[in-house]
Amino acid sequence: MVQYLHTMAKATAAYQLNLHVRLRNVPGVLGDFASAIGDAGGNIAMVEGFEAKGAAIERTICVNCRNEDHQKKVIAAVEALDHVDLLECFDSTFRMHEGGKIETEALASVGDADDLSMAYTPGVARVCMAIHEKPDVSFTHTIRKNTVGIVSDGTAVLGLGDIGPAAAMPVMEGKALLFKEFAGVDAFPICVDTKDPEEIIQLVKNLAPTFGGINLEDIAAPNCFIIEERLKEELDIPIFHDDQHGTAVVTLAALMNSLKLVDKKMEDLTVVISGIGAAGVAIGKILLNAGVGQVIGTDRQGAIFEGRDNLNFAKEWFAANTNAERLDGSVHDVLRGADVFVGVSAPGLIDASDIRNMAAKPLVFAMANPDPEITPEDADGLAAVMATGRSDYPNQINNVLAFPGIFRGAFDVCATDITENMKLAAAKAIAEVVTDDELAADYVIPSVFNKTVVEHVAPAVSAAAIADGVVRS
Amino acid sequence: MVQYLHTMAKATAAYQLNLHVRLRNVPGVLGDFASAIGDAGGNIAMVEGFEAKGAAIERTICVNCRNEDHQKKVIAAVEALDHVDLLECFDSTFRMHEGGKIETEALASVGDADDLSMAYTPGVARVCMAIHEKPDVSFTHTIRKNTVGIVSDGTAVLGLGDIGPAAAMPVMEGKALLFKEFAGVDAFPICVDTKDPEEIIQLVKNLAPTFGGINLEDIAAPNCFIIEERLKEELDIPIFHDDQHGTAVVTLAALMNSLKLVDKKMEDLTVVISGIGAAGVAIGKILLNAGVGQVIGTDRQGAIFEGRDNLNFAKEWFAANTNAERLDGSVHDVLRGADVFVGVSAPGLIDASDIRNMAAKPLVFAMANPDPEITPEDADGLAAVMATGRSDYPNQINNVLAFPGIFRGAFDVCATDITENMKLAAAKAIAEVVTDDELAADYVIPSVFNKTVVEHVAPAVSAAAIADGVVRS
Repeated sequence: MVQYLHTMAKATAAYQLNLHVRLRNVPGVLGDFASAIGDAGGNIAMVEGFEAKGAAIERTICVNCRNEDHQKKVIAAVEALDHVDLLECFDSTFRMHEGGKIETEALASVGDADDLSMAYTPGVARVCMAIHEKPDVSFTHTIRKNTVGIVSDGTAVLGLGDIGPAAAMPVMEGKALLFKEFAGVDAFPICVDTKDPEEIIQLVKNLAPTFGGINLEDIAAPNCFIIEERLKEELDIPIFHDDQHGTAVVTLAALMNSLKLVDKKMEDLTVVISGIGAAGVAIGKILLNAGVGQVIGTDRQGAIFEGRDNLNFAKEWFAANTNAERLDGSVHDVLRGADVFVGVSAPGLIDASDIRNMAAKPLVFAMANPDPEITPEDADGLAAVMATGRSDYPNQINNVLAFPGIFRGAFDVCATDITENMKLAAAKAIAEVVTDDELAADYVIPSVFNKTVVEHVAPAVSAAAIADGVVRS
Repeated sequence: MVQYLHTMAKATAAYQLNLHVRLRNVPGVLGDFASAIGDAGGNIAMVEGFEAKGAAIERTICVNCRNEDHQKKVIAAVEALDHVDLLECFDSTFRMHEGGKIETEALASVGDADDLSMAYTPGVARVCMAIHEKPDVSFTHTIRKNTVGIVSDGTAVLGLGDIGPAAAMPVMEGKALLFKEFAGVDAFPICVDTKDPEEIIQLVKNLAPTFGGINLEDIAAPNCFIIEERLKEELDIPIFHDDQHGTAVVTLAALMNSLKLVDKKMEDLTVVISGIGAAGVAIGKILLNAGVGQVIGTDRQGAIFEGRDNLNFAKEWFAANTNAERLDGSVHDVLRGADVFVGVSAPGLIDASDIRNMAAKPLVFAMANPDPEITPEDADGLAAVMATGRSDYPNQINNVLAFPGIFRGAFDVCATDITENMKLAAAKAIAEVVTDDELAADYVIPSVFNKTVVEHVAPAVSAAAIADGVVRS
């Protein structure tokens, strides 16, 4: 928590206070009130409109703060004011999460006996038997048509680590929100109280009759690889580990557009990936599939090459398929002369001198969250394109650009799998949202709020699924 | 299927056709059209309003039919008409189920960066850590506050038997509809692809961080007893097997009100229960808890008594706790002199002579679905009160009177269990919806569409949970 969030230097809605106050109608009260909040460093985000008529007015003000200590200071500053009474105060983020962030809504009416006899007994028995006789009917006449299960064991939640399945729920609910709001995909969180990959695999297989697809989320490496691979083999519905492939797809999209700016080709690139966990492995794979000439991965021990010690099975795959020259050395060593740095590792890992040592027109995607491997300020003037995972800098590499459209496209054609070509198609579609006219060093990737992204991604993914023959006939 | 539904003698919405037709504007065309449907036995349920102006009009007509063969006859009759073109035709029930009957809806907005920073990263991390530090926060700040998982293995679906988890989905979605529409409870189907009770127990335990309660549904006896008992022991959220307790609660409610009509007391009653599966066992338990003097269960082999052969562990419990005199014999034998017959077994099991042999003012609750142990017609004039499971006769014993209000009441106080007292309170509350003025032989139980039922049941269940000390503090 401290590690993840106390790095927030700016007042943010994540620490917003909602203050309900009574202001006595005396000259200067509004100015005093606003000044007190400003002096305490609070940022007024919203003020309800009002008209002073009586002796006092009540109003609601939202104030963005930096952290919980700062919230306390802002409250104290308000409480210290004459002529202002703090009537009620709550934390907007906690209030928003109260009772959860999703609900189940009815798509059929049960208001009278006729409704009930169609939606429930006896009519429902006809639909049950149609599925019993022809199992694929479950993909057209149940929620499987449009519903993804978001499965997490809570072992790698955001940057918070292994906080457990109950504590992971707010993230999975948030993910469900994003699925619905961005792509009309129904999603339901499934947080599981086990870390045993075999038990998770069996559980998801047992749940398969309920879902049209499975989005694995925030499961630590290397279990995430085992679970995804086995489920892809053993189930005939789309399985997608977003921390791997969502990040990989958006990274590739950003790279595709960046290459236009620096006039380089995929096959000529040397890309150094720092952090060979879930995201790093998947980024390596998709870059190779996209034709990148040379990929070199690094972990805490340095470059990954075939025969090195301390390689788990995922890193062994990585070693066998990248770094053909078996370069050894630190991330700083292998970055010399490289064209692209992709960081999914740790804050402050590299500095300006590392970028100076890269090839001409270096591309720097420093995506460690919330603090990148190098800040845009430190890379300023050195990187030809700079991207991060953050919303407060240009070029945010954010999974939300990928997963909603990928599942939308998969569900639209009843896909049975998410293939490599479907991921490549998604990356290309995301890149194409940025037109040549718009393309610039600070705009290689569309905004997460750009609603046209999913409209590009979904049909591209559907077409790739059809081309790959992974659609239910 | 055939067994379950072809008993429908009447045209019903469960077999409704939606016909889109073009009627040429010639004299008599509407009469011919309506007559053709009527002659074919179809029952016109809905006609769109229209005004004839041009040479032809297009309109939509809904026609209730008896079964699928009958639907074909009605279509053929329409197609045979001059001046009428059948433009489109679909089955209303299948159409209603297309794409599933529930969706996930957002309770929080993600329309801009501030929203996203509260609902998702980075703000969501604060709620995650609050749960990590204090696990009970998951019951206030996630969907657990109001969400029940409807778990089925598809082994005992309606009267259809073991049709499997995928085919059970439409029923579980329907149940989710009912939870939401009747009590504002969010519910999500969990159909599991295993029949192994240990595996189901482990799966539900693993899913517990996601749900505030578990409704077990359509799981065959005796596994349903094993699963429910173990989950009640091992989890601290409400666990409720509706096929058992929902039926039991509503049966008791009907009995409470019926006793007022026949002026008998619980402790003086002899009740014969036919069918000692999930529902029968639970009815026996709740009747004993409600003070019924003598309960005798019967299965295909006859009366259940201690020491009899062919008793599974649930029937052994039943034998040990009922039929103190160890009466032997068929259901017909033990019904002699009994006050109440409760049937959860098979159609046509008893006849008028059995009722004549019962004590004065016999109560007959013949709840086998869809065809009762004895029809109201056959019991007419003999039973003081007659109830069935069907919507087309008076006194429908339907679980929907119980489960929505029970979970509403449990969630409202963050209950950790569903106790016997909570079930008794629910039964009493359902019974009380029928006022003394309204009470009559054909009205001992409220209609399933009576919205005040849940308003009575929920607070009664909440109060019982508090009294029993099973609420999260």
